[in-house]
Amino acid sequence: MLSHNQIKYINSLKIKKFRMQHQAFLVEGVKSVSELMSSHLKVLKVFAIPEWLDNNFKQIKNKNIEFTEITEEELIKVSDLSTPNQVLAIAEIPSVTFPKTEDLSGMMLALDGIRDPGNMGTMMRTADWFGIKSVICSTDSVDVYNPKVVQATMGSFCRMNVFYVNLPEFFKSLAPEIPVFGAMLEGPDISQKIFSRPGIILIGSESHGISGTLKPFINEPLHIPHFSGTPTAKHAESLNASIANGIICYEICKQLSKNNF
Amino acid sequence: MLSHNQIKYINSLKIKKFRMQHQAFLVEGVKSVSELMSSHLKVLKVFAIPEWLDNNFKQIKNKNIEFTEITEEELIKVSDLSTPNQVLAIAEIPSVTFPKTEDLSGMMLALDGIRDPGNMGTMMRTADWFGIKSVICSTDSVDVYNPKVVQATMGSFCRMNVFYVNLPEFFKSLAPEIPVFGAMLEGPDISQKIFSRPGIILIGSESHGISGTLKPFINEPLHIPHFSGTPTAKHAESLNASIANGIICYEICKQLSKNNF
Repeated sequence: MLSHNQIKYINSLKIKKFRMQHQAFLVEGVKSVSELMSSHLKVLKVFAIPEWLDNNFKQIKNKNIEFTEITEEELIKVSDLSTPNQVLAIAEIPSVTFPKTEDLSGMMLALDGIRDPGNMGTMMRTADWFGIKSVICSTDSVDVYNPKVVQATMGSFCRMNVFYVNLPEFFKSLAPEIPVFGAMLEGPDISQKIFSRPGIILIGSESHGISGTLKPFINEPLHIPHFSGTPTAKHAESLNASIANGIICYEICKQLSKNNF
Repeated sequence: MLSHNQIKYINSLKIKKFRMQHQAFLVEGVKSVSELMSSHLKVLKVFAIPEWLDNNFKQIKNKNIEFTEITEEELIKVSDLSTPNQVLAIAEIPSVTFPKTEDLSGMMLALDGIRDPGNMGTMMRTADWFGIKSVICSTDSVDVYNPKVVQATMGSFCRMNVFYVNLPEFFKSLAPEIPVFGAMLEGPDISQKIFSRPGIILIGSESHGISGTLKPFINEPLHIPHFSGTPTAKHAESLNASIANGIICYEICKQLSKNNF
């Protein structure tokens, strides 16, 4: 059974201020909690219906995870999902600092002022698909431990290192030979470019694109063309940030893999 | 001023049953309403704050559009947006039937059981970017006139022909030489394939992928590889449907454009 204090604690973790205070975040649903339990992250507590506890009893015992059996009605009461799914876990926010040199190898993603939790989660899921391990976010980007971001990553939050930094300072500190790929509404056609070195894909915010202070750090501007239709044909004005990120990840990772990087 | 009946009518259009009954749908915000007013769609009514009416008075008069001046507080009361933006329009749902032969040329998109309004809207926006004009949806896909879909298309709803059909019947009626591209978790690597003819990109639902009844119609199965990492490395299990659609649109449209199709 859920106590009044437990309900209050769970609900508080839907708000960033209290996630920071408790250094804890919510993970919901069978798939995401299963990924959480197989990861390096520390599980603080599990609230689950009897069916889930029966199916996961060995793992809960082996890992010595504190748990409370709850009813479906209780789960619905505290869940952040439109269709609550058997289990809700509380995990510890890992302590991260400024990215170290070893975090800055291979392909990386830098997010500048991304506000939509769905976009942020989807970009992390896409990056994870293509083997990207580090995501560097501006401090005004949405919190990666927001339940809607965690949900949209579909478990990828367990495999990524996410850093919140002053992005201009971060780019200033980078070795100048590291490519910084930036999607622009105009610029060199991505499909005509040759990519031979991994670098950082910089994605701008949904409403303002890449900030003016960051544009000077882009040494590999990219443009995704329409490809089709007459030059005067009307098209969407832009691509969604997470779609642009998907296409850029695809094109660059494809070429790097062919060059056996 | 908004009357009680107007509030009731606007709110009813957030529900599919009443959209069908009134053959009308909501369009919100400066950008989407501006795209609507420049399109072939019929605008039935506009509710806007004085600032918007001042800026758009000529167009409203020229097109003889019925309008009501409202306050920001009234707009907030009826808006479906988290940040209401000056104007809300009601447009007529265009009458569409089964796609005609002229709708079935060039690249097309077929959506099988897409439930998430954001995904549907983003896929339409992406298709519009790449010059795709027709979207064929299974009858269990989310309604394109759902306010959240309209919003996510960012105006692309004005430029697309959207059909709701029995998808297996539709594919049966297609000329067998039309390529049907289907994204699979395993199959031929999309980056190794040569695309020389336009066809239909079939995207499966977020939770179940492409239905079993539709798989036999796929004559061009495609797989988006991870490209990177060791074969045993853990990755996201799948890509979000709208990201897979973005990458497939990009790769096929790029090749067709290079072949001057």
